[in-house]
Amino acid sequence: MPEPARTLYTFPLSANAQKVRILLAALDLPYTSATVDIPAGAHKQPPLIDLNPRGQVPVLVDGDLTLADSHAILVYLASRYGRQRWFPASAEGQGRVVQWLSFSANELHNTLHLARLHFLLGVPLQVAAAQTAGRSALVLLSAHLADRTWLVGDTPTIADIACAPLAALADDAKVDSSDLTPLSLWLGRFRSLDCFQPLG
Amino acid sequence: MPEPARTLYTFPLSANAQKVRILLAALDLPYTSATVDIPAGAHKQPPLIDLNPRGQVPVLVDGDLTLADSHAILVYLASRYGRQRWFPASAEGQGRVVQWLSFSANELHNTLHLARLHFLLGVPLQVAAAQTAGRSALVLLSAHLADRTWLVGDTPTIADIACAPLAALADDAKVDSSDLTPLSLWLGRFRSLDCFQPLG
Repeated sequence: MPEPARTLYTFPLSANAQKVRILLAALDLPYTSATVDIPAGAHKQPPLIDLNPRGQVPVLVDGDLTLADSHAILVYLASRYGRQRWFPASAEGQGRVVQWLSFSANELHNTLHLARLHFLLGVPLQVAAAQTAGRSALVLLSAHLADRTWLVGDTPTIADIACAPLAALADDAKVDSSDLTPLSLWLGRFRSLDCFQPLG
Repeated sequence: MPEPARTLYTFPLSANAQKVRILLAALDLPYTSATVDIPAGAHKQPPLIDLNPRGQVPVLVDGDLTLADSHAILVYLASRYGRQRWFPASAEGQGRVVQWLSFSANELHNTLHLARLHFLLGVPLQVAAAQTAGRSALVLLSAHLADRTWLVGDTPTIADIACAPLAALADDAKVDSSDLTPLSLWLGRFRSLDCFQPLG
């Protein structure tokens, strides 16, 4: 069977799209990139809004399947193509990974990610509160990593792919994380993975 | 093998804990409830903070496993005890369900759930913006349900369990959803499930 036609709707500065680009590279899956001009509002217009009523990138079209939401795409790709390396088959492993998907969507996205957009694009935000909460999230992450190499188990999973790109936004969010050594070491390991793809 | 000792740390007014109570009932799993006195700050103190550094309910202790985060617990329980009825085994099914877990965590939680806490407990919030975004989320949900009985596939899944309890907070959030007929019908079907557990 030929490879399905695969297109990722993305934006160079989107850390959520970056997560998907990293997993696509890890799984060695070829794809076409379609850049959505977010500053021009293209994510709120066709064709993107027809693919994803939430009006967000990334969106993946994989053969007949259209899927939005970075974490949904990570679970789908890992489950379909990852032979259980990136998303475990065990109930306990899946639960532990999903904890970190939620942590990324809540504690990291609502703080560091929004603060970065505030400074980059002027998006309105109670920025001091977001920075304080973002710092707390990084402290928690660093404490978890004090005696671990990766967030769940002994190898990187989609838990790391969901969290590391957002944790790496601390500088852009003007949150100091220089004292959090386990966090810095983990981010360094993550950037050293062969599949790593930078922002931009 | 005897059933593992199973404890759910919960709070009667927590819609996130409600999600887990509903799935535990659906799976016919016995458990002990431990009420965490959130208004008194017990979620930021031992024993809860030792079980979950994020300081949130629900937390599930299932034998040797401690798991926090309502969506992580839903995935774990459905994967371990649900025989693929509540969380599909297929990559596509898992991706589609996780889309709705993210929708719940982002578009519903950050809007209706926070607006409800604002009115109930005085939690600070830019409430008009949250209400507007919450209304948009309900419109999107209702459009998706216009020709569907459940969010993913032909039977209820953890996608419905993740979204319906938060969508049902519209009145508490002072967001009018009375014109959204497909949404109202779906919430009615959800409340009629044998496993449904009310708030409080």
